[in-house]
Amino acid sequence: MQLLLPRWLIPVQPRAVLTEHALVVDGSRIVDLLPATTALARYPDAKVLHLPEHALLPGLVNLHAHSAMTLLRGYADDLALMDWLGQHIWPAEARHVSDEFVFDGTLLAIAEMIAGGTTCANDMYFHHGAVARAALAGDFRMVVGCSILEFPTAYAADADGYLRRALDAIDEFRGEALLGFTLAPHAPYTVSDATFRRVITLADELLIGIHCHIHETEDEIAGSLKEHGVRPLERLAGLGLLGSNLVAAHMVHTTDEELALLARHGVHVAHNPSSNLKLASGFARIADQLAAGINVGIGTDGAASNNKLDLFAEMRLAALLAKGHSGDAQALPAWQALEMATLNGARALGWEERIGSLEVGKEADLIAVDLSAVATQPCYDPVSQLVYSAGRSQVSHVWIAGRAVYADHRYLHLDLADVQARARRWQGRICA
Amino acid sequence: MQLLLPRWLIPVQPRAVLTEHALVVDGSRIVDLLPATTALARYPDAKVLHLPEHALLPGLVNLHAHSAMTLLRGYADDLALMDWLGQHIWPAEARHVSDEFVFDGTLLAIAEMIAGGTTCANDMYFHHGAVARAALAGDFRMVVGCSILEFPTAYAADADGYLRRALDAIDEFRGEALLGFTLAPHAPYTVSDATFRRVITLADELLIGIHCHIHETEDEIAGSLKEHGVRPLERLAGLGLLGSNLVAAHMVHTTDEELALLARHGVHVAHNPSSNLKLASGFARIADQLAAGINVGIGTDGAASNNKLDLFAEMRLAALLAKGHSGDAQALPAWQALEMATLNGARALGWEERIGSLEVGKEADLIAVDLSAVATQPCYDPVSQLVYSAGRSQVSHVWIAGRAVYADHRYLHLDLADVQARARRWQGRICA
Repeated sequence: MQLLLPRWLIPVQPRAVLTEHALVVDGSRIVDLLPATTALARYPDAKVLHLPEHALLPGLVNLHAHSAMTLLRGYADDLALMDWLGQHIWPAEARHVSDEFVFDGTLLAIAEMIAGGTTCANDMYFHHGAVARAALAGDFRMVVGCSILEFPTAYAADADGYLRRALDAIDEFRGEALLGFTLAPHAPYTVSDATFRRVITLADELLIGIHCHIHETEDEIAGSLKEHGVRPLERLAGLGLLGSNLVAAHMVHTTDEELALLARHGVHVAHNPSSNLKLASGFARIADQLAAGINVGIGTDGAASNNKLDLFAEMRLAALLAKGHSGDAQALPAWQALEMATLNGARALGWEERIGSLEVGKEADLIAVDLSAVATQPCYDPVSQLVYSAGRSQVSHVWIAGRAVYADHRYLHLDLADVQARARRWQGRICA
Repeated sequence: MQLLLPRWLIPVQPRAVLTEHALVVDGSRIVDLLPATTALARYPDAKVLHLPEHALLPGLVNLHAHSAMTLLRGYADDLALMDWLGQHIWPAEARHVSDEFVFDGTLLAIAEMIAGGTTCANDMYFHHGAVARAALAGDFRMVVGCSILEFPTAYAADADGYLRRALDAIDEFRGEALLGFTLAPHAPYTVSDATFRRVITLADELLIGIHCHIHETEDEIAGSLKEHGVRPLERLAGLGLLGSNLVAAHMVHTTDEELALLARHGVHVAHNPSSNLKLASGFARIADQLAAGINVGIGTDGAASNNKLDLFAEMRLAALLAKGHSGDAQALPAWQALEMATLNGARALGWEERIGSLEVGKEADLIAVDLSAVATQPCYDPVSQLVYSAGRSQVSHVWIAGRAVYADHRYLHLDLADVQARARRWQGRICA
C-alpha cells in the first residue's frame, strides 16, 4: 500500500484542485482519497511518497495512435499528403513492416509516451500480436486496433485476411488486464460496405469497440460523394456503424446536421490537432463538437505525421486552436482540455469506470508533474500551468495499474538503451 | 579559444547540415568553421568540447516579448480580451508594476528563455532601466523596447513622459554590447498621430528601431476605420512609419495590398502564433507574407497571454499553422521555421551582421540540443527533429556572445533559487 502526498491533487472528476490531500493505492487500484493528516493516521504502515512540488493527476489517454510508425519519425516531412504516402511512407512500410518492426517501433513509442505522462493509447496498425507484446513488455495500457482494409499488404491479402488476423490476436491475448482490442476498418475510402457490415456484427458479438478514420480530409468527402452519392458519415450511418462503441478519428469536416448525428448516436471523436495542421487536413470544429454534447478525446496520430507523441503539446494545441478557430478566447478552457486528455479518452474506450480520473475503485493510472521548474513559476493555477505552460519533460513519475514504471525522470523497468539501439538499427536499414 | 565538435553543425546560413565539422570561438566571436580534423590540427591549444549527440545551431531570437509579464503567467486565462485586460491584467499591473517587479519578472523570463535556447529577445515594456539591468544580470542579449502611449500609468503621465523615460534609458545604457533599444509606440489605437511623428523623427536621429503592435485584431481595424477613416496600416504609412527599422508585431489581418506595402517598405513582421490563437485574434497569413517577400520572425508575446516563452513550441506551431491555414502541407517547411526563429529575427533587429547564423565574424550566440532523447529517435533529419519533435528541455548548452551561460542543463552564473524566490514573493503579493 502506498500513500502519495502531492502539493496538488487533481482528480479531474470532480473538477477540483485539492491541497493537503493524499491518494492511497493498494495493488493496482486507488483505495482512498482523503485529507493528508487523516491518511497518515489511518494508514500508518503505508509507504509514503512526498511530491512537494508536484501535481498528481490521471495518466493521459492518447485516443489515436499508430505507435509503430515512430520508426518513421521525420523520415519525410513537408510534403503533400498523397506524395508523402505514395512516394515515401507506403513504400517504406511495404519494404520494412514486420512483426519485428512493429514490436520495436511500438516499444519506442511506449517509451516516449510514458516519459511524457501518457499511460494508455488507442492504437491502430498491423501485426497486432507484436503491438500487444510491446505493450506488455512496456507495462503499458493499450487498446490494440486491428486494421482492416480491402487491399493487400504483407500482413494480409484482403479484408477476410485482416479480420482473421484480428480474431486470432484477440483470442491470443484474451484476459490480459492491460490490453483491449478494437476492430479498425481503416477509413471509408479503403473499406467496402460488406466489410463494414461484418465489422459491425463481429464487434457486437465480441463486445469490443470500432476505431476508424472518418472525415479527415475534404478529398475523402468528395470521393464518397462521387462514388456513393453521399458523404462518408451518411454512408456509415446507413450501414449502422454509428454508436457508442465507435471512435471516429479526426472528424475534421462536419456540418451541423452531422454534429447532431454524432451526438445522437454517442459516437466519440479523437481530435488530432497537430496532425490535422501538419497534413493541412483542415480545422476541426471542436468548440462546436463539445457544444453539441459529443465526447471528444485527444490523440497524437502517428509520429510520421506529427512528429511527437506528446499529449501535453496536443492538450495545449487543442485549447489554443479551439479559441483561434471559433474566434472565442473563452472556448475550450484549460480544465476542459485536461478532461479531454484523460476522462473523455477513457470514456471513448468504454473504460470510464476503470481509468481517466482519480476516484476510489479505479485503477491507479497516475502521473506526477513537477511544477517547480522556472517555466511553470509563479503558479497561480496548476491546471493552467499543466495545459498552457508545462512541458512533458516535467513529468517525474508514472504509474500504470498501480505499478511504478517511471520515477524521478527514469524508467524503472524499460531498458532504454536497448529500445534506442533497436531504433537506430531500423534507421540504418530504412536508409540503406 | 574553444573548439566545439557537435554531431551536427547547422549554421542556418547557408542551409546545410554539416557533420564532422568544428566551430571555433574566440572571446565573443566565431573565428572559424571547418572540418573537424583540420580544426584539431590548426588549433591544438583550443579547449575542445565534444557534443556527440547534439545539434549546434544559432541561438533563437524571440522577436516579440513582454518579459516582465512572466510574473502574471496563468494569473488569468480563458477570458475575452477586454475582460482579461480590463478586469485582470491592467488592475494587477497598476497595483504592482515597479522597477522591482520589472527586474524580477524580466530575470525570470530570461532564465526561462536561456534554458529553452533563446539567446536574444525583442522586448516591449515599461521601466526600461530595470529591463536593461535584468538583461545584464542574466548575460542575455536584449533589445529594450520603450513603450510609449498617450494614457498615464505609474511610469509616466503622457506620451512626453514616456519619451523622456525612453531617452534617459537609452542614454544610461549606451555602449552596452548586449543591449539594443527601440522606441515602442504601443499600438495604433493607443498612440496619436503627433506622437507617431515624434517617434519617427527620434528613431531616425538615434538610429534605432521601432517596435509596434499592428493589426493584431479585427476590432483594432474597425476602430481605426471609425476614428480615422482608414485601416491602421494605411494611417501609419501616411505618417511615414513604415520602413526597414520597423518591427510590426502580430500583423494578423492583412489584405494583399497591405502585404505588398509591407514588402515594399521592408517592414519586418513578428509572428506570435500561440498568442494569436489564445486571444482568438485570428490567423496570420504567414505563407502569403513569406511569399510576398516579407521578413517574418517569431515571437512568444508575453507569458500572460501565451503562457510559455518557448521558441521551440512557437517554431513548431508556426510551421504547423501555416500549413493548416494555407491548406498546403508543403507550406513553411522545417528549414524555413528555423530560419524565421534565428536569422529572420536577427535581420528584423538590424543585427543580421552580428547574430542569427553561425558564420565567421559573427558573435557566438549558440545553442546545443541533445537529440539522443527517445523523443527524437530515430534521427533521419536533425532539422525536422529540432522543429517538429524536440522540446526545449533538450537544450543542453547555451552561449551568448561567446560566454557559456548554460551547460549540461544547468545555469552557470544565474542564481536560479534566487530568481524563483523572487517570483514566489510576487505571487504572494499579487494574490494578497
